[in-house]
Amino acid sequence: MTRTNTTMPPSREDAIEMDRQDPFAHKRDEFFLEDGIIYLCGNSLGPMPKSVVGKIEHTMKEDWARGLVTSWNKAGWFMMTDILGDRLATLLGAGPGELVVSDATGINIYKTLHAAISMQPGRTTIVSEATSFPTDLYMIEGVTSLLAHMDIKLEGRDADNIEELFDQNTAVVLLNQVDYRTGEVRDITGLTKKAHAVGALVISDVCHSAGAIPVNLHKENVDFAVGCTYKYLNSGPGAPGFAYVAPRHHGKFKQPLTGWHGHADPFKFEQTYRPGVGARALLSGTQPAISAVGVSAGLDVFEGIDMHALFAKGKDLSSLMADLIEHWCEPHGIRFYSPRDVNHRNGQVSLTHENGYAIVQALIARNVIGDYRQPDVIRFGVTPLYLRYVDIWDAANHLREVLETEEWKDERFNIKQLVT
Amino acid sequence: MTRTNTTMPPSREDAIEMDRQDPFAHKRDEFFLEDGIIYLCGNSLGPMPKSVVGKIEHTMKEDWARGLVTSWNKAGWFMMTDILGDRLATLLGAGPGELVVSDATGINIYKTLHAAISMQPGRTTIVSEATSFPTDLYMIEGVTSLLAHMDIKLEGRDADNIEELFDQNTAVVLLNQVDYRTGEVRDITGLTKKAHAVGALVISDVCHSAGAIPVNLHKENVDFAVGCTYKYLNSGPGAPGFAYVAPRHHGKFKQPLTGWHGHADPFKFEQTYRPGVGARALLSGTQPAISAVGVSAGLDVFEGIDMHALFAKGKDLSSLMADLIEHWCEPHGIRFYSPRDVNHRNGQVSLTHENGYAIVQALIARNVIGDYRQPDVIRFGVTPLYLRYVDIWDAANHLREVLETEEWKDERFNIKQLVT
Repeated sequence: MTRTNTTMPPSREDAIEMDRQDPFAHKRDEFFLEDGIIYLCGNSLGPMPKSVVGKIEHTMKEDWARGLVTSWNKAGWFMMTDILGDRLATLLGAGPGELVVSDATGINIYKTLHAAISMQPGRTTIVSEATSFPTDLYMIEGVTSLLAHMDIKLEGRDADNIEELFDQNTAVVLLNQVDYRTGEVRDITGLTKKAHAVGALVISDVCHSAGAIPVNLHKENVDFAVGCTYKYLNSGPGAPGFAYVAPRHHGKFKQPLTGWHGHADPFKFEQTYRPGVGARALLSGTQPAISAVGVSAGLDVFEGIDMHALFAKGKDLSSLMADLIEHWCEPHGIRFYSPRDVNHRNGQVSLTHENGYAIVQALIARNVIGDYRQPDVIRFGVTPLYLRYVDIWDAANHLREVLETEEWKDERFNIKQLVT
Repeated sequence: MTRTNTTMPPSREDAIEMDRQDPFAHKRDEFFLEDGIIYLCGNSLGPMPKSVVGKIEHTMKEDWARGLVTSWNKAGWFMMTDILGDRLATLLGAGPGELVVSDATGINIYKTLHAAISMQPGRTTIVSEATSFPTDLYMIEGVTSLLAHMDIKLEGRDADNIEELFDQNTAVVLLNQVDYRTGEVRDITGLTKKAHAVGALVISDVCHSAGAIPVNLHKENVDFAVGCTYKYLNSGPGAPGFAYVAPRHHGKFKQPLTGWHGHADPFKFEQTYRPGVGARALLSGTQPAISAVGVSAGLDVFEGIDMHALFAKGKDLSSLMADLIEHWCEPHGIRFYSPRDVNHRNGQVSLTHENGYAIVQALIARNVIGDYRQPDVIRFGVTPLYLRYVDIWDAANHLREVLETEEWKDERFNIKQLVT
């Protein structure tokens, strides 16, 4: 996508022309997106792939209603953790047997933290960003409180120069590949190298990178990874997350959520636990089959997609939004919170404004769906699979109008409630 | 249901007459059940309530597709753990705020074990049946391996006289209210009294009692309970389980799966974990909304049902099956594995036969769906919401024919594969 760099921002017609040249334009048709809505929350909950409706109806009406209990095998419900895991592994630069789709992200963080610590006898610190997504921090708390006798504790700081905390005592580093507040992309490969240099292991939380930017777990050389399927992977509300373990660690770790699904031979009903092979040792309980079918539909959309090309479009969209906002909105008190360099963000554009909450509400009233995070952050999830250049142009223009007219001052936009 | 006790077993016409008098006969219409199938695996996976299809379609096409991220609030996804929990609490003799619908059973066992141990400083044993459902044992292993420094260990034995293991050192007793192999109902109230007498806490696993027999968590006076929704509660494959904590313990325990969903104020994104009130402190991560909607449909079927009356029908069905099998099948080497006294079983009829596997396969070929458990157990889930007396008669008659003709000897019924 080439665009003449002038002092004037692109016009709406320019944006329409960019859509005409967009090699991913046809992907939008694979999603249900209501006319007139500009959806900029795909970083929180991805929109619905159309194919999910038929797939889940089939799961209910055929597999459950008619197949009944036999569908655990015949419809593949029981092995969905692995089947979906292998498909997702392909998208994330990993191999078969290394990744399982299962459980919420927090539970996967808990399991991989324990797994990493079990491989690091004598080392007592977990290093993480103090500004991490809260679940990551809460789960570290859960682990450290339980392992207080081992003196396991958290060392955290803002992500800048976090590698200064890595030392001979670091058992494991838990890093967010992308900062959920700003969309900033971390150099996970470089950080992993530094962690490995002192013998620490790395867990990469890819919740805000999987499906948004190219992720290559093998090349990044991380030891474990966890992630979410309902953001950029569009798999439906609360669809199961996933956990990855590098093949070099298979069979070498322990984690305490030793449920029957992760047993080496679950249908033997043995009284003693024996962990399954590879990533199966990270499984615990029975998974919600109907929600898991959503992951299958979510992954269908990515079939045949080159993530580098998709991210290139994402950066173009993100640049367009940044250009327009700089020209139109900075004079009204909007400040950039995301990195200015588009190569350092995952597409997401985060802004700050002291009246961020009311501005987000005013935009929602105009059918521009972004979100707000305390204390003053406006987040726009810029996602290249289904957003058009003209959507971005229109969204920025709505923001300009909301600021110019000061319609965000309206009382109805200033009643605070539980925010999603 | 009265039936003359004669030496002759009831005829098929008798069974049809029993169906005519059955006050629950109309409930069968609320389920999808294919003609000609006799489904005796509701103890493993309940059949599909018809209403689930429309509910899940609405969740996809309206709440997800159109409501998008706002549905976490507007469609109630975020609080579904509590809303469904309060509804289920009513069915199980508990109050609002005491029960949450969330996570797989194994994970709930893990959380409640830690919660109970956190309230019992100095006590070091977990008592459970050595013949418990494997997930219970595996999770105890997970906890004891983690708490080895506290010398926490399992003491287990067959369920008979398990109370002999309760002593001043018992931190927590994990009991299955119903034995999954035999359907035997334990005197959970009596056992809890004995456990409390020595200061031990009780976790009741109600996977095979919730929805099958009257459960009254308050009267039973258990401290915690965990259970499953996809067996007798018919909520769909892998639908979320649940966890209960008695109100006297609210705010007094700790569990280590401290995910953001259980935080006292999840949308404040605080860096430090503060547990939510009541049973919310047992929550961890985001739940699979689409699968959770299945729990809503499953509970609809129980609205207005008197569990004592429903269990009375369950016992009648179970007695009918036992009578017929005694008359027809014991001469062919079938042995009772369930308790003979119908008041001591949850409806389930378990039998043993050295060729149990092949017999179950031969029955499946006749559209009688039971299941097999190693080494020689044939299980029939007798569930009063949707089974007719005539179904039970026909099932017993099929078993008689399979035994009399010895058709189970057919090679195709003797190829062992993964069993569900």
